[in-house]
Amino acid sequence: MEKIPYKIYLEEQEMPTQWYNVRADMKKKPAPLLNPETKKPVTLEELSHIFCAALAKQELDDQTPYIDIPEEIRNFYRMYRPSPLVRAYCLEEKLQTPAHIYYKFEGNNTSGSHKLNSAIAQAYYAKKQGLKGVTTETGAGQWGTALSMACSYFGLDCQVYMVKVSYEQKPFRREVMRTYGAKVTPSPSMLTEVGRRINAEFPGTTGSLGCAISEAVEAATTQEGYRYVLGSVLSQVLLHQSVIGLETQTALKKYGIKADTIIGCAGGGSNLGGLISPFAGEMLRGEADYEIIAVEPASCPSLTRGKYAYDFCDTGKVCPLAKMYTLGSGFIPSANHAGGLRYHGMSSVVSELYDQGLMTARSVEQTEVFKAATTFARVEGILPAPESSHAIKVAIDEALKCKETGEAKNIVFGLTGTGYFDMYAYQKFNDGQMSDYVPTDEELAKSLASLPTV
Amino acid sequence: MEKIPYKIYLEEQEMPTQWYNVRADMKKKPAPLLNPETKKPVTLEELSHIFCAALAKQELDDQTPYIDIPEEIRNFYRMYRPSPLVRAYCLEEKLQTPAHIYYKFEGNNTSGSHKLNSAIAQAYYAKKQGLKGVTTETGAGQWGTALSMACSYFGLDCQVYMVKVSYEQKPFRREVMRTYGAKVTPSPSMLTEVGRRINAEFPGTTGSLGCAISEAVEAATTQEGYRYVLGSVLSQVLLHQSVIGLETQTALKKYGIKADTIIGCAGGGSNLGGLISPFAGEMLRGEADYEIIAVEPASCPSLTRGKYAYDFCDTGKVCPLAKMYTLGSGFIPSANHAGGLRYHGMSSVVSELYDQGLMTARSVEQTEVFKAATTFARVEGILPAPESSHAIKVAIDEALKCKETGEAKNIVFGLTGTGYFDMYAYQKFNDGQMSDYVPTDEELAKSLASLPTV
Repeated sequence: MEKIPYKIYLEEQEMPTQWYNVRADMKKKPAPLLNPETKKPVTLEELSHIFCAALAKQELDDQTPYIDIPEEIRNFYRMYRPSPLVRAYCLEEKLQTPAHIYYKFEGNNTSGSHKLNSAIAQAYYAKKQGLKGVTTETGAGQWGTALSMACSYFGLDCQVYMVKVSYEQKPFRREVMRTYGAKVTPSPSMLTEVGRRINAEFPGTTGSLGCAISEAVEAATTQEGYRYVLGSVLSQVLLHQSVIGLETQTALKKYGIKADTIIGCAGGGSNLGGLISPFAGEMLRGEADYEIIAVEPASCPSLTRGKYAYDFCDTGKVCPLAKMYTLGSGFIPSANHAGGLRYHGMSSVVSELYDQGLMTARSVEQTEVFKAATTFARVEGILPAPESSHAIKVAIDEALKCKETGEAKNIVFGLTGTGYFDMYAYQKFNDGQMSDYVPTDEELAKSLASLPTV
Repeated sequence: MEKIPYKIYLEEQEMPTQWYNVRADMKKKPAPLLNPETKKPVTLEELSHIFCAALAKQELDDQTPYIDIPEEIRNFYRMYRPSPLVRAYCLEEKLQTPAHIYYKFEGNNTSGSHKLNSAIAQAYYAKKQGLKGVTTETGAGQWGTALSMACSYFGLDCQVYMVKVSYEQKPFRREVMRTYGAKVTPSPSMLTEVGRRINAEFPGTTGSLGCAISEAVEAATTQEGYRYVLGSVLSQVLLHQSVIGLETQTALKKYGIKADTIIGCAGGGSNLGGLISPFAGEMLRGEADYEIIAVEPASCPSLTRGKYAYDFCDTGKVCPLAKMYTLGSGFIPSANHAGGLRYHGMSSVVSELYDQGLMTARSVEQTEVFKAATTFARVEGILPAPESSHAIKVAIDEALKCKETGEAKNIVFGLTGTGYFDMYAYQKFNDGQMSDYVPTDEELAKSLASLPTV
């Protein structure tokens, strides 16, 4: 048999020409978004006030399995895709495991992560609709950077509300965004109604994604020619991110590899959902079976300790309600936590697949995550993002189980990005000053008490 | 004709299995290194006190055209190589040039640059010789990071003397090195004789590569089981870096592309020398002709304003003398300058090729360089290192000339790395606070006055 190369690169002509919409293959669909005032399913017209029209349509479409990727977006994809599927020979050697470990590496672009896959799509549709610009939030800064790059490419104005704790810990992320022409504001800010309200209510807050979302939505709906875009959680984002899973599937097939276990980190669900979509599709159609594992931080454990219920997507409660695994929209994760993955909820699609038993979930603590990250960096030569390292941690755990059982499983995980802008967190870890934080049951009960009644 | 893809990736089996030693094809060889005390050519035995034996041998070998790349190094190369040769379709479109622009992108690894190509080779030979560790200097931090990665891979101790101005501007570079287990010291330090002397002579100095080299050499020669390694300038480094040019050559041939102009940034010459070696070889053997352009910063213009003479490689004058284009070993570039390329001299091989008329050289000012970098980042989606951006600047200039003349030249340049750790410099540029600095004739005359007599 042909030796599997260290990096499997597809040819350009093997890249996907359509995104895959896993909702089409789900018999029980994710619950619809609700209008926060009427509590009725949002209409295309209502959604089009927030999102640009084509994206609102994608958001509501749970029937069409394949959607063409416009040529302009495919051209942009060619600048940094296909991303490699890497055989982690050196990690396997280090662990002395019989398992075969593969990772789909999305970090080889300047945004440093998979976020660019959806950013360019969202910027494209905004441009096509003739908008002036878009507003968004960013947590760790990867989405904001990705969107800045995409907007700069299409000549759109880009306004980014960046979670304050990241803004302060990552001044250089801000500079990358500025280099691409974006305006970056720490959130909660005093520029929006909702920002002023949250600042008054929680003085000294270091912010959260939920809060930055509210500000960005307000900024979009109060400026002429602007719409809001979001880097995760939404079904449209998972649709765009399916390019990750589709490429992974093609690469595995090319070498006759059958994945046993598929692992992804889960914050809002964009990477996990994108990676697993085509595989979950095979499971839903009864064509194959996989063990899918979602990995989330113990400090923000929406799948493992949250409730599956309708909730606000944002702290300011201006967005539609989504049914999802949630910790409550008032949940603000400890500033102690190093990476992204600081969102209180989880993509409706991922939530529903999880509820249907298509995947399991695990939560891991950050000190262990950084240990895994360092091990990985030293043998695989890639310094991973803290978010991605959650998946590394569990991939290593699974590979070590194989060492005990002697099984030569094929373990595939998503390496969403690089940690070049996370050195503040690495420094804490290197200095032995990193600690773990797990919310108490009381804290979770408190934030879950505020779930809306629908 | 087959459309040229955005990124040309070679297959693993197309990767070079031998390095190319351009000195073997030079009729007039680069002048030998001299012992700084006897002023006679250094012997293998003398050199083996500083470098490990296999590397000392490579340093002195100007006869063997091809040298096998050991299997262990080729395995490591497979982790991040082959690097893509990218067709800059978007840049061409932006410039509206008939020229075809290609760049060999060496930034897709955690060291962020081509430096890893030689780091892993030097660490390998050190390990094979049974050494405990190595010492080195680093300027912008790319070499230090690369060496940290390489040493971590082979389990060697790694001591890095980092030019003080970079140490202060780039704390996160230091953290990457620490994550890979290296010890990092700002230079000039108080840990070495030479560091203490330079600190006394130039209080408040922000350091230079030449000075950090002296410290690292002293540290290597005063500790049992240590040797010194260097990331540029040396002929052994150019040998290892020939992998860049060899891959480029193979990729061009694969698509039947004949390069017209080849452009590289030049600090110590490692990237430029590696990129052009196989092409210069063709020229030396009379098989082809290319226009080769070296690009250096106007603030440190060794080729364009220096003298071709024997000089010290380091400020402390402990290294062998090399014949090279130099500004004098006492030359310390303005701290104002953003990137690496802060070395007073130039690789002997590059110097000799330049002296023989095989290439031309240009110097460019940093504000223009950052303008080119920003243009490039916005259309090609890669945030380039300041060093690499020197080559971008001239590639753009050449493409714009083609626009005037209507020529569809094939322009190939080396994009040595990414700028993720250079955001302090980008911030200055974004804030309009970047200025240019060109040394006066008087300043250069002063530093050139200290050239040794041989």
